[in-house]
Amino acid sequence: MGRSRVWTSRRRQVRAPDGSLQALLAPRAVAVIGATERQGASAFYVMRNLSENGYAGRILPVNPKGGTIFGRPAAPSIAALSERPDVAVICIAAAQVNAALEEAGRAGIKAAVVLASGFAETGAEGQARQHELAAIAQRYGMAVCGPNCLGLFNLHTGAALYSSTLVQGMRKGALALVSHSGATALTLSNCGRLGHSVIVSAGNGAVTDVPDYLLWLAQHEATRVIGVVLESIRDPAAFRVAMAAVQDAGKSVIALRVGRSDAGQRATVAHTGALAGSSDAYASLFRQTGVVEVSDMDEFVETAALFTELRSRPKRRGVAVIGVSGGGVAHVSDIAEENGIDLPAFSSQTVARLVAILPDFATAQNPLDTTGIVFADASVYSRVLDAVAADPGTGLIVAAQDAPPGLDDRTSGEYFGIVGAVAEFSRAGAVPTVLISNLSAGHHPAILGCINGSVPVLNGTRSALRAISHVLPRRGPVLDRMPPPGLPPDARWLARLVPGAVLTEREAKHFLADHHLPVTRETFAATAAEAVVAAEAIGYPVVLKIESPDLPHKTEAGGIRLNLRDDAAVRSAFEAVIASARRFAPTADLRGVVVQEMVTGGVEAIVGISRHEPFGPGMVVGLGGVLVELIDDAAFELLPISHDLARDMVGRTRLGRLLAGYRGAPAADVPALCNLIVGLSRLINSYGDRIDAIDLNPVSVLPQGRGLRILDALILTRR
Amino acid sequence: MGRSRVWTSRRRQVRAPDGSLQALLAPRAVAVIGATERQGASAFYVMRNLSENGYAGRILPVNPKGGTIFGRPAAPSIAALSERPDVAVICIAAAQVNAALEEAGRAGIKAAVVLASGFAETGAEGQARQHELAAIAQRYGMAVCGPNCLGLFNLHTGAALYSSTLVQGMRKGALALVSHSGATALTLSNCGRLGHSVIVSAGNGAVTDVPDYLLWLAQHEATRVIGVVLESIRDPAAFRVAMAAVQDAGKSVIALRVGRSDAGQRATVAHTGALAGSSDAYASLFRQTGVVEVSDMDEFVETAALFTELRSRPKRRGVAVIGVSGGGVAHVSDIAEENGIDLPAFSSQTVARLVAILPDFATAQNPLDTTGIVFADASVYSRVLDAVAADPGTGLIVAAQDAPPGLDDRTSGEYFGIVGAVAEFSRAGAVPTVLISNLSAGHHPAILGCINGSVPVLNGTRSALRAISHVLPRRGPVLDRMPPPGLPPDARWLARLVPGAVLTEREAKHFLADHHLPVTRETFAATAAEAVVAAEAIGYPVVLKIESPDLPHKTEAGGIRLNLRDDAAVRSAFEAVIASARRFAPTADLRGVVVQEMVTGGVEAIVGISRHEPFGPGMVVGLGGVLVELIDDAAFELLPISHDLARDMVGRTRLGRLLAGYRGAPAADVPALCNLIVGLSRLINSYGDRIDAIDLNPVSVLPQGRGLRILDALILTRR
Repeated sequence: MGRSRVWTSRRRQVRAPDGSLQALLAPRAVAVIGATERQGASAFYVMRNLSENGYAGRILPVNPKGGTIFGRPAAPSIAALSERPDVAVICIAAAQVNAALEEAGRAGIKAAVVLASGFAETGAEGQARQHELAAIAQRYGMAVCGPNCLGLFNLHTGAALYSSTLVQGMRKGALALVSHSGATALTLSNCGRLGHSVIVSAGNGAVTDVPDYLLWLAQHEATRVIGVVLESIRDPAAFRVAMAAVQDAGKSVIALRVGRSDAGQRATVAHTGALAGSSDAYASLFRQTGVVEVSDMDEFVETAALFTELRSRPKRRGVAVIGVSGGGVAHVSDIAEENGIDLPAFSSQTVARLVAILPDFATAQNPLDTTGIVFADASVYSRVLDAVAADPGTGLIVAAQDAPPGLDDRTSGEYFGIVGAVAEFSRAGAVPTVLISNLSAGHHPAILGCINGSVPVLNGTRSALRAISHVLPRRGPVLDRMPPPGLPPDARWLARLVPGAVLTEREAKHFLADHHLPVTRETFAATAAEAVVAAEAIGYPVVLKIESPDLPHKTEAGGIRLNLRDDAAVRSAFEAVIASARRFAPTADLRGVVVQEMVTGGVEAIVGISRHEPFGPGMVVGLGGVLVELIDDAAFELLPISHDLARDMVGRTRLGRLLAGYRGAPAADVPALCNLIVGLSRLINSYGDRIDAIDLNPVSVLPQGRGLRILDALILTRR
Repeated sequence: MGRSRVWTSRRRQVRAPDGSLQALLAPRAVAVIGATERQGASAFYVMRNLSENGYAGRILPVNPKGGTIFGRPAAPSIAALSERPDVAVICIAAAQVNAALEEAGRAGIKAAVVLASGFAETGAEGQARQHELAAIAQRYGMAVCGPNCLGLFNLHTGAALYSSTLVQGMRKGALALVSHSGATALTLSNCGRLGHSVIVSAGNGAVTDVPDYLLWLAQHEATRVIGVVLESIRDPAAFRVAMAAVQDAGKSVIALRVGRSDAGQRATVAHTGALAGSSDAYASLFRQTGVVEVSDMDEFVETAALFTELRSRPKRRGVAVIGVSGGGVAHVSDIAEENGIDLPAFSSQTVARLVAILPDFATAQNPLDTTGIVFADASVYSRVLDAVAADPGTGLIVAAQDAPPGLDDRTSGEYFGIVGAVAEFSRAGAVPTVLISNLSAGHHPAILGCINGSVPVLNGTRSALRAISHVLPRRGPVLDRMPPPGLPPDARWLARLVPGAVLTEREAKHFLADHHLPVTRETFAATAAEAVVAAEAIGYPVVLKIESPDLPHKTEAGGIRLNLRDDAAVRSAFEAVIASARRFAPTADLRGVVVQEMVTGGVEAIVGISRHEPFGPGMVVGLGGVLVELIDDAAFELLPISHDLARDMVGRTRLGRLLAGYRGAPAADVPALCNLIVGLSRLINSYGDRIDAIDLNPVSVLPQGRGLRILDALILTRR
């Protein structure tokens, strides 16, 4: 389940889970600012939720009018409280919030919940208000949930600092839920499938945000799994630190991003920027930190249910599928294949066992149709489970059995034998087992009664199998090595790479060569005669390229001539290149040409850097050449990148298949490409804040042992 | 909904829905062969289902022992029946089925249901049995459901010729369900969401199969939508004819394929003896005939629910999304984008109306977060619906409102105002409207009570939006033109294209040129000297290619030299090509070389033909060149292909973007490419039964107005 965490030792200092988070999430006394018995007011709900959910701490209403609220005497102000609460739930309008927070801070209260809307989500005035709120919280060292949130609910203490009606008797469990979206928290926590430890509607997260909650939950005993609904990650470094703590604690994080479509992000000069969007950056961060990303609410629910209910983790990736219908198991197999789940063939020993158990007209294979015989004799199903569990390829068993909710008592009863056999097998615990229904509507209630929690039950073929894919051991190497450190920056290049500076291809290659990255041999030539001299020095054949700071894409400008074999060809190419470029861009600064060695016999790759704030620089690797955006073959990772991760990236691309030796070609020098990836990552580590984007396209990766050559390079400095 | 049907006028003659299908699906009297009161026997279930479901026709038990069964006197044989039934439900073991069918045929019974397994799904003996069964049915003109099935159930007549326990009081409705998989029929029909007209478990479909049922259902008044669960289409021509009838009747077909993956195919082969074709071939057939293909059971249920419940079809593709939560509508928007659904921006008029309705902190955009104000005042929601419906971009409104099943009565009641507003708006019918829940678990039952069927309710963001995507008007042109007819075959080529014949590239190009497809100018040369003469005649630069019937892929053999500019280059290339090919394949028959014109400045495409039985030949169009398999850019259609469809194919590919003029290149001659596609389709129409595959790769598509040239051609004759 999840790769080990990556390079977490250089930890950034984030908010330690000092007393303030404990005060927020497990308070012993709660002040309710603006407490009232007026129905519809947020304070009414908070008071009612605290009263109804068995909160054992003290509830301290505050209202300038005093009086008695929900049977408790109200203090006229925070200062007038008889004791110092751990947390103040501020239930008043946005305009009054900061004054109340200041008062709470002065009174030594370490945490607050701010429910009101009217902060950064609403424009300039709200942004200023939120800025002030954050400053107050920082001044007093307070943790603050919100603003613009529903609050939070610690189910194990009954601290229901929550401004929406809570369902009575919500199920306690091992799943913590932290959501930027209050309504989504409400939907997920009331789906009827999950038991919760803590529910946090984090709202704008102005002070205390997802990484802070993760750090506290890493140490929270009642929490084993953490579900996060994210609108954005505002501080990726803090998120990495928090995830390291969560992983150290052996807990899992499931994340659903809402608002993830990134239309409009893809227009940039560098190709690399077009090959990766913000979803790629999130996916990389999640991969590197071991977060399980889910794609919709159903997958969230099934994954959370599986992670909290599965007794042990599968030791192998192989999944065995068993059902009572050929069509049914074929459907499961279809969706499994679409989601990268292997259904390995059974061993001959297993096949022999199954043949002995099943009737003649059954076929002993994975997926396995037991045939309807199991309705008459459920012991057949039990023996099949035993046989399949003993197969050396089986890591997890999926018992696919529909018994849909539209059945009546008589018809649902016909399935008791089968699901009873699955439940009994699962209780024994030989191999992790999951019962799934093909319909998301799930099983008839009588079936669930019959199972009584003995086996995880997942609903909907697609969501169930995606959940299962998250629980299987990952393919490929575990990425646990630290990436190499950055290169020492060079003062000359620091001086050159100032904001807005424009580098020609030649300068870009000098920069790369100075940092030991292999570029083509090449010489600048201002005239045709100089070009001929240069070509003779380099050796034929050569390439001519226009040299101009105004033409980042030379192909479109007709500014490249390849495979020039003699002096005459160089001379005429010089004139042709200058003429083409002039036609293409009449006002461009055309300085001459670069004469380059002609590299042949390599595979064309692109290696590029682009920025993805707030994540910083990321790298793209894929098939290179002029069609790069069209072919759209790209693996993306945020920096820094280790050798392991570089190999993994290449392996994810079609480029990787080409490098391996496609259609009889010799295998290419993949280690050289990995060296380039790591080297570029180290380079950016030193100069990254001065660079917006790098395109190395094409990079010619030569046959094994012969290295590679960067044929073209584009570097865009920060604007 | 769906494209109009394509080229349906050349109808094949399939089984007409004569009396036999009517007898099978709406019988007035039913004989139950092997009738018994013994629990567990299939005849027991059939007798009980007929008795319990209000079947008004006569039920005629047949049992050699006579006696009284379910209160009815049993005849000792079919011949001894007091009246001639419409259908015989044969409930006896496989070995006795054919004798009984023969007896029924002799008695003039026009239809039968054969429940037993033990036919083509089980091996050679069963296949022979099924073959005999089909022959008997044909001899007597009988329609037969099965064998290896659960039977069928006409809910409107109560004819429950069904061998599995039926839920009592199943909901009647407009959806017919025809399924190769009995268990899947059972799951879908009991999902609790759908009302049915007829349910057919078609089993092996040995006699009467999906096309036959479609033809009958096209005319069945109570059926408006037909859901099909397919293991395979055995007779694509019959399927096309049936789909034309369904489309003429204004009905929709929703299809779910099970066993569509490799692993899944193993399960189906074992089950019904059916060999599934490729997913591309199915997708093409479905596209060409207007079938809505769904990817899993959940999508089937939501799509069937939407098609049966939506009062009117949207007139535009634009979808407006409304919800009470920013995170919630962002999530819907994410999944909409992933499924090709447009959420157009509201007009300035609509924005102005919304600004007037909504509070300051709301943002008037699509997707629209009304904010929580609608909980306090549902009339705001009503006014928002009116404003959004009036927007010129709105074709359908999605009201995304969760109220999950885990709520209690108190909390679910908080949503009555909102869902009531949606229901009221939908009843008025201004714009098609759908209420969706993000969770597949759906809404709390009280919500459904509140709505009371006034608005279609769909569950699960992904399945709901995929269902909605199927109901939107299609993008792009309607394909309703007949493809041009085949070319008259040429006797000389008919004689050459015999099974097993091997064509060299040069012969393949002769064949194409003889049928007016534009190939390169080229000449065969057996010696270097001949090659030079040929090159001078064609004009430099030229290409040399090895000529050998034993080297279908010349690149791997080092058998190609490009861009030869003079006599010396041709001479040395000749020797090099022969030497390379000899090294690559020492025993190959090397006849010499072909000297070709060198074509430059074109875009490289692949156009290819392959066979996909039982669908016949299909065509692939995409990016060409040596990396074609790696780049994997391909539109596929079954033949024949019209000009409209050819344009549509090119438009689906990345090749299409390249042809349009990529990165400053001139636009390429797409009409010439479409002519090639249609021309090749016509060619195959004449010679197709002699050809296994054609690769035209690369085809060089020149700039607009300059046509194209087929640079390489490979034709494989039938083996």
